[in-house]
This record gives sequence, C-alpha cells and structure tokens, in this order.
Amino acid sequence: MNILKNGTITSPQGFVAGAAASGIKASGKADISLVFSEHDCTAAGVFTKNQVVAAPVLLDQETLQVNSALVRGVITNSGNANACTGEVGLQNARQMQKISAEAVGCSTPQMLVLSTGVIGVQLPMDKIAAGVHAAAAELSRDQGHQAAEGICTTDTFVKEIAVEVPLSSGTVTIGGMAKGAGMIHPDMATMLGVITTDAQIDVDVLRGMLNAAVDVSFNCISVDGDTSTNDTVLLLANGGSGVYIDRRDWSVGSDYAIFSEALIHVCKELSKLIVRDGEGASKFIELTVTGARNKTEAHQIANTIAMSPLVKTAFAGSDANWGRMMMAAGKAGVKFNQHHTSLMVSPDGEEWLVLLDGGLPTGYREEAAAAIFAQSDIYVNLILREGLAEATVWTCDLTHEYVTINADYRT
Amino acid sequence: MNILKNGTITSPQGFVAGAAASGIKASGKADISLVFSEHDCTAAGVFTKNQVVAAPVLLDQETLQVNSALVRGVITNSGNANACTGEVGLQNARQMQKISAEAVGCSTPQMLVLSTGVIGVQLPMDKIAAGVHAAAAELSRDQGHQAAEGICTTDTFVKEIAVEVPLSSGTVTIGGMAKGAGMIHPDMATMLGVITTDAQIDVDVLRGMLNAAVDVSFNCISVDGDTSTNDTVLLLANGGSGVYIDRRDWSVGSDYAIFSEALIHVCKELSKLIVRDGEGASKFIELTVTGARNKTEAHQIANTIAMSPLVKTAFAGSDANWGRMMMAAGKAGVKFNQHHTSLMVSPDGEEWLVLLDGGLPTGYREEAAAAIFAQSDIYVNLILREGLAEATVWTCDLTHEYVTINADYRT
Repeated sequence: MNILKNGTITSPQGFVAGAAASGIKASGKADISLVFSEHDCTAAGVFTKNQVVAAPVLLDQETLQVNSALVRGVITNSGNANACTGEVGLQNARQMQKISAEAVGCSTPQMLVLSTGVIGVQLPMDKIAAGVHAAAAELSRDQGHQAAEGICTTDTFVKEIAVEVPLSSGTVTIGGMAKGAGMIHPDMATMLGVITTDAQIDVDVLRGMLNAAVDVSFNCISVDGDTSTNDTVLLLANGGSGVYIDRRDWSVGSDYAIFSEALIHVCKELSKLIVRDGEGASKFIELTVTGARNKTEAHQIANTIAMSPLVKTAFAGSDANWGRMMMAAGKAGVKFNQHHTSLMVSPDGEEWLVLLDGGLPTGYREEAAAAIFAQSDIYVNLILREGLAEATVWTCDLTHEYVTINADYRT
Repeated sequence: MNILKNGTITSPQGFVAGAAASGIKASGKADISLVFSEHDCTAAGVFTKNQVVAAPVLLDQETLQVNSALVRGVITNSGNANACTGEVGLQNARQMQKISAEAVGCSTPQMLVLSTGVIGVQLPMDKIAAGVHAAAAELSRDQGHQAAEGICTTDTFVKEIAVEVPLSSGTVTIGGMAKGAGMIHPDMATMLGVITTDAQIDVDVLRGMLNAAVDVSFNCISVDGDTSTNDTVLLLANGGSGVYIDRRDWSVGSDYAIFSEALIHVCKELSKLIVRDGEGASKFIELTVTGARNKTEAHQIANTIAMSPLVKTAFAGSDANWGRMMMAAGKAGVKFNQHHTSLMVSPDGEEWLVLLDGGLPTGYREEAAAAIFAQSDIYVNLILREGLAEATVWTCDLTHEYVTINADYRT
C-alpha cells in the first residue's frame, strides 16, 4: 500500500468532483460539494444511531435500500444540517437529490445527499439549486481537494487521503474525505465521510468491509461525546480500475484481506485527522485499555476516560493529574479491581513512564510526568489485569477554544 | 416547615462543630472540619458507585456495617482525596478516625471520615493530627458555618441550610452542609454532604429516608458528568429534640411523611446550590423531560442533555441553539419518535416559549428565545408524547472558567 502525495477523493479512476459557494455559509466559503463517478458504483453507508435523524440520513437510507448498485455520486451542503425540519426538510432533501441528478445527468435515486451545519433551519432551496449547478460546472479530476473543503464547517483543515493498493490482478486506489470538529463520539457514524475506490466490489461485500472498518476507526474517536443527527460515512466503488475483489478468498494475503486493511487504514487516518482537528484541540491522545475481560468492556472504559471533561481539561493544562483518569475509568460501569490496575503514559508509544502500579502511585519523578503531559501527542495505557482484551480510542483535550467555538457557533 | 435564617449543620440540638487550617491546602484556608454530636446518633450513608473508591469511603462503609446506631461525629479533610493510595491510604484513614475519636473523647468506630481533593497523594498525617486537634478545640454550636467552609475545595460559596419541622409531638430540626463544584453527576452520592437532625429515628428507617431523598436530589444534578472516587452523603440523627419519628404511621400528614418531605427539601436545596456553584457555572438550568414511557427513560434523556458539552457551551454563550438539545436527547439510547416531540423554554418555569412542536420549529421570534437564553436561570421542558413519566435534573453551563479551573487544578 502506498500513500499518495496530495491524494484526494478523485484519486481513484473515474471519479470527478466540484465545489461552489452558494451563500449558505455567511463566510462566503464553499458550501456545496459534489462527488461524481463516470461509472455506476456499488455503495454502502453507515449512519448515526441518534434518535433525532436529519432528513438527508433518512433519504440516503431509503435510497440505498432501493439502489445500492447503481449509485453515481454524492451531493453535500455544509452550513445547514437539514435536521429537525420535519416533512418540509425531507422534501427539500429529495429536491436536492433531484437537482443534483439533473445537474450531472443521472437519475434521482443515483445520488446520495449529505448535510451538515445548524439544526432546525430549513434549507434555502434557491441557494442550494444555484450552488449545485455551479459545483456541477466545476466537475473535474482536479477538484477533489475543493470538494473536501466544501464539506467543512468548524474544521480548521481539510481531511483527505488516498492510497494505492497493489493486488494480484492490478492496482486499485482508495480516496477519502471527511469533516468533523464537533459532535464527535464513537458508536455513531461520527461525522461526514465519503470514501471512493476504483475497485469493483459486490455490494454486500462492500457493506461488510465498511462496517468492519468504521468499527475500528470512526467508532473509536471522541471529541466531545456528542453525536450528530447527520453522521454518515459513505463508500462508493466504481470498478474503474477493472480489478474485481473476489470475496471467495479472504485468507491472509488475499486481495480481499489486503484491500480491507487498506480501507481500514484510510478510515483510521481520516478518524485521527478528525481528532487532531477536534474543536479547540491542542493535544492528540491515544488511549489504550488492556487486560479487560472483553473488548466491549475495554472500549467502554477507554471511551469513558476519553469523554471525561475533567480528564480533557487536565490534558489541556498539561497537568499530570492522572487520578482523574482513574476516576473516569471507575465510573464506566465496568467492574474491576482498583488494586490490580496500572497506568502508564508515553510521548511516543514506545518509552513508557509508569505512574500507577497495583493501584498505587509509583515513585515516578513529577518532572518526568510533566514532560510527557506537555507533549502535543500523548499515549496512555491503562492495564486492568482482569483478562486479555484491549481497545484503543483517540481523543483530544478540552480547551478554552472549544468553549469559544461552541458558545458562539451561530453568531 | 420553616427555613432557618443562617441555619447550619449545628442548628439541630446537641450538635457542635469546629474547623481548622492544617496546611494541606496551600492557600492556608480551613481544611479540617469536625461535626460532633453530644448524644449517640443513628447514621446512614450513600456512597459513590465508582469502581475506584477512596479509602475513607471504604472505611465508612465498614464502620456503618458494625456501628450505625452509636455514631458520634464526622471528621473531614479537604485538599487531599486519599484515593488511589492503596493499603497505606486505608491505614491513614483509620488513623484519622482514631485521632479524631481521641480528640473528641469517643471510641474509634463512632467517627465517620470524609476526604476530598487531589487523587493519588498520601495524606500528610502529621498535619492531619494537628488539624484534628485544633478543630476539636474549636467545637461549639457557633462553628457550623466554619465547618461547612472547611469541607470546600473549588467551591466559591458555602452550601448549608437548616429547617425546623413541626411534628405532632414537638419540633425537630434538620441541618445540612455540602461541597461540590466539580466531578458532579447523578447516580452517585455525588459530592460530600453531611446532614444532621435532632429527631430520633431508627437506623433502618433513616437509611430508607436518605436513599429516597438522595434519589430525587443529589442524583438529579450534573455539573460535568464526572463522578468522584469520594462522593458521600451522611445523615446523622441524635434524638436531641426528644421527638421520635414513628415508622408505623407513614400516611399523608404523618410525622414520618412530613419529616421525609423536609429531608427531601434539604437535600434538593443543597443539590441546587451545588449546581449553582458548579465549576465556572454562569447559568442554572432546570431540565424536565415529560411524556416518557417510564421514569428511567425520562431521567436518561434529561441526564444526557445535561451532560452534553455542546448543549452546555450553547447555554454559556446565551445561544438559543436548541437543536443541540434535540441532538443530545436523541443519543440517550432511548427510543422515541422525533416527529412527536415538543421543546419549550422559560425564564421562570411559568411562562413558556414553544421552540419546537411536533418535531418542527415553531414560528417563534428569535428575540424572544434570545431573551430567555440570556437569563441566568433557564427552565427547559422536552415533551416526548410516548407515555406519562417525567424526570427533572438540574445542571449548569460549560464556560471558559470551567476550563481554567480544571486545566490548572493542581498548580
């Protein structure tokens, strides 16, 4: 697998993209983003588990039920979530799907729709229509980066990646873009993500691959414990490379296995970029819980630590206040013996400083701990000694900047 | 029931208190607090459900198992939680219990022990010993307020209350003090609280009363979703009034019922004071979910809204961004139909502005909503229309001040 320099959503063959500023964003930045495939795609999606679901999520679920093998593209608007907008919102999402299909010249159910932004405001359909046509006019292989820009909201940088994957019968490419920043938490599709590939993959295989990849990537990141009404990850495979991924051989080293690993890599990298760009984030934290009875419990504890405002503010202050991590671990609803636990931290995931061993503070030097907590990347390992399962999550700190961004989001 | 002016923990007959600065707090403020009863008390406690439990919590649970009818007092230190301190920590807690018993002249298992502060540091026992004796030398009926001061950490004001309760055979008094500020969340005993009464109550009745009162008070507040290793609420009844609460009549209007109501009032008022003094809090929010299928689900949704950083920062910014409350409600893990929901807000709990009805934004005036979100007290009501159950929680906003306090807590 080779990571492509300046790789984008249009790195896989047969994909084009375009973006436009429709005026939904007061800033005048691009807020319409279009990804289009020259061939029909098999497509799969993972969606928010929130009970309050935005109109485009409902529409995409419906669309993928009737058409998951002839998808042509994805239209996204940023600045307005089209959530809590009732029947009118759903009609608007349908209209957006129809307008974009007309603009690119395919039929309506071949387009998928994404929205992100403020909740509870109806989409300005005149702006959407003009924006969609403007984005369609831009469609080209060079506009992948612009498309990734167009889906951003409070993101401070564009999140995209592409990798080349040599397989037995040729090389395929996977491209991806994502937006995140706030309302990021595991157990949901977590944000907007669009992944493209020119491999040819049967739709049921594609679904399984996407679910497995999301499980160890987008579902393992937490910015603020909040999950959106709109979280969606879409995967489109257009077969443009002519390479077919055969499901019948899924042994180690098979095309299936190599492609799956590459897809996981793309999803993990996008996920980590989302955490690094968490609203107001100044630190990136990789948190591993080992020695749990099972994976669910390991994940539950890691998540609870990652979500704790007291833990996150301690990281923001570069304060080696590890007691808060133990407090957070203890409230996860998972039984463990505090006297068997150890906690260690590292600046690189290789050299570790043990802070707590057998439930007791070690005689570590305060300056050594302070030096690690002062880093911008911090690795944490909590060892439970209850079993053999482990889980890793990625999170960021909770800073003044987070409060500033979110106290005045709409102003 | 009459609320006493300047009521404290020593308002009930037969209780005295004292406080001292032992030097555990670098600020030189009082950090040892002693509450003592001239008569033996029946006593009950509610403790943290965190898996990581501080030494004094383990000690009090053990003490109340062997002695819940002859308790004489409570010794508290602030500035050091005596948590994650292993066997040495437990020995230190026992030593603290013994020193305080000697200082006041009772036997060791007649004292209960509380600690609050930094996790993972052993108690400085020399300072503790000197402080306990200094506090014991201060014991008097006038020092109730000082005792309440002595248990504070990041609290910005002292939390105390006392009420007089006229019963059929005489008047009894209930006094209470609490400390909170951070690591405050429901489903735990939630902070340190000590409640005294001069009623005479059998210990099993006392336990039931305290559990019921905590359930609708301390378990209904959330500052940051974090729960401490040390959370404890203690209730001591010394019978000093000579009035016995007979358990056999618990009908409406009975002494039992009237006293229980008064105890709930004391617990609720202390709980609300804790929220008002939440770390960095600038707003007090009363959040009610009605029309849920059952109380557990109502509570679950109310809690999830109260815990959401995005909701809390919107309140901090006086931003009527109610979509975030719907998002938070939707991620609570409770099934409901978003198209049947309504959401309303009020500055006083009496006049309501409906923002969302039947899942759709109403045509409310943005200025009217902004005016309510600008208040320092805000009432929110989410109506689900799934059933008849409801729950209320109290919470506060998430401000820059919260980050400042918690990023640099130990420095």
